[in-house]
Amino acid sequence: MDTVTSALLTDLYELTMLEAARDAGTASRRCVFEVFTRSLPAGRRYGVLAGTGRVLDAIADFRFDDADLRYLASTGALREDTLDHLAQYEFTGDVFGYQEGELFFPNSPVLRIEGTFENAVLLETVVLSILNHDSGVASVGSRMVTAARGRPLIEMGGRRVHEDAAIAAARAAYLVGFASTSNLAAGAHYRIPAAGTSAHAFTLLFDSEEDAFRAQLTAQGAGTTVLVDTYDVESAVRTAVEIAGPGLGAVRLDSGDLAAQAGRVRELLDSLGATSTRITATGDLDEYRVEELKGEPLDGYGIGTRLVTGGGHPAPGFVYKLVEREGADGQMHPVSKRSLDKATLGAGKAAYRMVVGGQARAELVLPGEAEVAEFERELTAELISGTSNPDWARTSLRPLQVPLIEAGEDIAPKRAPARLEAARERHAASLAELGLAADDGPDGEIAIPTLTDGAEAARVLR
Amino acid sequence: MDTVTSALLTDLYELTMLEAARDAGTASRRCVFEVFTRSLPAGRRYGVLAGTGRVLDAIADFRFDDADLRYLASTGALREDTLDHLAQYEFTGDVFGYQEGELFFPNSPVLRIEGTFENAVLLETVVLSILNHDSGVASVGSRMVTAARGRPLIEMGGRRVHEDAAIAAARAAYLVGFASTSNLAAGAHYRIPAAGTSAHAFTLLFDSEEDAFRAQLTAQGAGTTVLVDTYDVESAVRTAVEIAGPGLGAVRLDSGDLAAQAGRVRELLDSLGATSTRITATGDLDEYRVEELKGEPLDGYGIGTRLVTGGGHPAPGFVYKLVEREGADGQMHPVSKRSLDKATLGAGKAAYRMVVGGQARAELVLPGEAEVAEFERELTAELISGTSNPDWARTSLRPLQVPLIEAGEDIAPKRAPARLEAARERHAASLAELGLAADDGPDGEIAIPTLTDGAEAARVLR
Repeated sequence: MDTVTSALLTDLYELTMLEAARDAGTASRRCVFEVFTRSLPAGRRYGVLAGTGRVLDAIADFRFDDADLRYLASTGALREDTLDHLAQYEFTGDVFGYQEGELFFPNSPVLRIEGTFENAVLLETVVLSILNHDSGVASVGSRMVTAARGRPLIEMGGRRVHEDAAIAAARAAYLVGFASTSNLAAGAHYRIPAAGTSAHAFTLLFDSEEDAFRAQLTAQGAGTTVLVDTYDVESAVRTAVEIAGPGLGAVRLDSGDLAAQAGRVRELLDSLGATSTRITATGDLDEYRVEELKGEPLDGYGIGTRLVTGGGHPAPGFVYKLVEREGADGQMHPVSKRSLDKATLGAGKAAYRMVVGGQARAELVLPGEAEVAEFERELTAELISGTSNPDWARTSLRPLQVPLIEAGEDIAPKRAPARLEAARERHAASLAELGLAADDGPDGEIAIPTLTDGAEAARVLR
Repeated sequence: MDTVTSALLTDLYELTMLEAARDAGTASRRCVFEVFTRSLPAGRRYGVLAGTGRVLDAIADFRFDDADLRYLASTGALREDTLDHLAQYEFTGDVFGYQEGELFFPNSPVLRIEGTFENAVLLETVVLSILNHDSGVASVGSRMVTAARGRPLIEMGGRRVHEDAAIAAARAAYLVGFASTSNLAAGAHYRIPAAGTSAHAFTLLFDSEEDAFRAQLTAQGAGTTVLVDTYDVESAVRTAVEIAGPGLGAVRLDSGDLAAQAGRVRELLDSLGATSTRITATGDLDEYRVEELKGEPLDGYGIGTRLVTGGGHPAPGFVYKLVEREGADGQMHPVSKRSLDKATLGAGKAAYRMVVGGQARAELVLPGEAEVAEFERELTAELISGTSNPDWARTSLRPLQVPLIEAGEDIAPKRAPARLEAARERHAASLAELGLAADDGPDGEIAIPTLTDGAEAARVLR
């Protein structure tokens, strides 16, 4: 796929709309597009925004090259003058958004793109592809990390998803706190620690399990992880400790009743003097299974399929909607569709997390300056009256949107690994602010309400 | 991601296993790996193999370049001499497999890779990534095509999945009979017809819906598809026909109760003289919803999320297992693990589809020469006895495995679009052979049994 530019990662209709708008003289109208989702999947307390760093790179690279233009010409869907225009395309607008790693809730405006219609509309498909995919993985991965209660998690799902999606999935997993990945491309591109030792095929390659373990331990040292469920777990554990000695790094269980086996293997290892040998578990794990295993003597997990496929919810349903645009009068106007079940709220929005004593209480999504002003009036009135809840004094409003691109330029360009580390830190801080406990279990109500009315937001604290 | 070679789309443990096997002298043992899945998701009658063409390209490109090797050295996981060996890597073995587009069932050996351990083991991750992803999309897409009963389907899910997965998903959708895609990269790379006209943002950009329709119809001609649910469907349909005349190509419904609206819109169009204007529907459709809509006057569907995310089953669970390898005695030996719930059947397998009078009856997966011979003996005995079922005479055994790579060389290299067209034809023929009717509904039992015993297979026809 090396011949594909990010500009072709786009739906045809973006280009036909551009052509029609150019003919009609509306292509240069200033527009505000917002990315948000209408709801969270049942049981999810929060979503995790991931992919913003990749979006910034995709926007910077968004150009139609000669091969792209030749292909577009061959479709017959666009006129020559439109193709000439596309040849000059680069994004010149502004982008604001939540920091990567930040949490989101229904209607959180995680990204805002401002520019002319013809300049901003083209980005829709690639922006949504990236944010939907990466956030889908991050949103379930964060739950897995919480369920693991500090035990390290290895991402190992690459073989269950598209080969390039695998790299982005490993990135999203690391962002939410996974310790490492099995995926070498993710290791190379994002400097995520790579992990992995051996598979069943390795044991089967040898004439005996003992030969296989001896070969692995010789090559990789006693600190390696030995896979013990190819034939008989107990006998494999005995063989491994016999060869490696009590310094054996870890044994891996990949099948059967993990809960029952963990205890037996721990006892066996201890009885053999291998008291510091760790036990790791893999095999169709997800946050629910990890939660069930919390009392077992397991020291780490490898998670694949359920992580990289988003745990049943592969995309958060992010949409890219026009919320405000210049009219014939030259003024900006909020716009919204009235489609059944899919109505949108017009106007560009300001977003804050209301935090009381370090704990997140509400997502404020205020459409337009008027609502922000109303909120500030109410807040001031409460403070002046002196009768307000003592919480007021401990309240802060954390602005969620930061400038990302200004006049087409990335404001703080960073190398991919540095962006990822920053996002990992942001995620940890925002999750801590939410104050959820692992003991609450994976599922629950949405953690904080999304408030779109300034006066209502002020009342929350009363 | 342009710096990533297919060789890095690999799990670290493939390389550590290779190093350990080289030290132990087993790396050059001849091996047979097979790709198969243990089961189909509940309700699925069959799976569709997709991605084989992409696998062949990935194998041909599988090389470690200097940047890859520098990264691998930086991990400290591999020794210098191993890296030197990897620098020379290219696949030199043989690959056999089901033709792309072919159906598969539990334990169908859809791909067989033969080579030395060190040569064949490295391909596991990228082979599985591609086959799992593409087959996941194709398997649900085929059901959608059946449910649509000849009405054309547009793939439009790119925005819901990783940007590169989107291209492969469009390819898989076309393979199973989708008419077109919204994805330009898929159009460019695979010559899939690209489709699409306008979004809600286009209507909202204008001061009135009438202005928007006029602009679109002027630019794209009366044959275009107009989106009519931004404000009020009835008034939008009237406006569009008024501007375009009765030659309006199509109207698109994207929200609300599609069944109720379809009839009303058809009546309205007919009353306005637009009797040949088509109605297309989009919006969270899948095979079940399309099935429910079968009686409505809808002329085509656009399908996104549920298609590209595999309809709740994103990967068929393909695994890449060592089933046979050379032993210390220089002979080949079947091998299998005994892990609980995950036991494998040793030996390379021959696979045939038993077809009676043009209709598929069973999947024969015969492990080893002995089972194939047993089956042939039984078959011959039945024919000689003259007492056999008359079906015998109408029975054929269609070999499912064809040679794909010989000594590292692609046997019939083709350009990507040609491979895709061949797979589309194979799929249509194999699905016809299965003889399922659209009226059976999307879900059901597995269509044909997988038989692994030669004598049992012969008895099926009695």
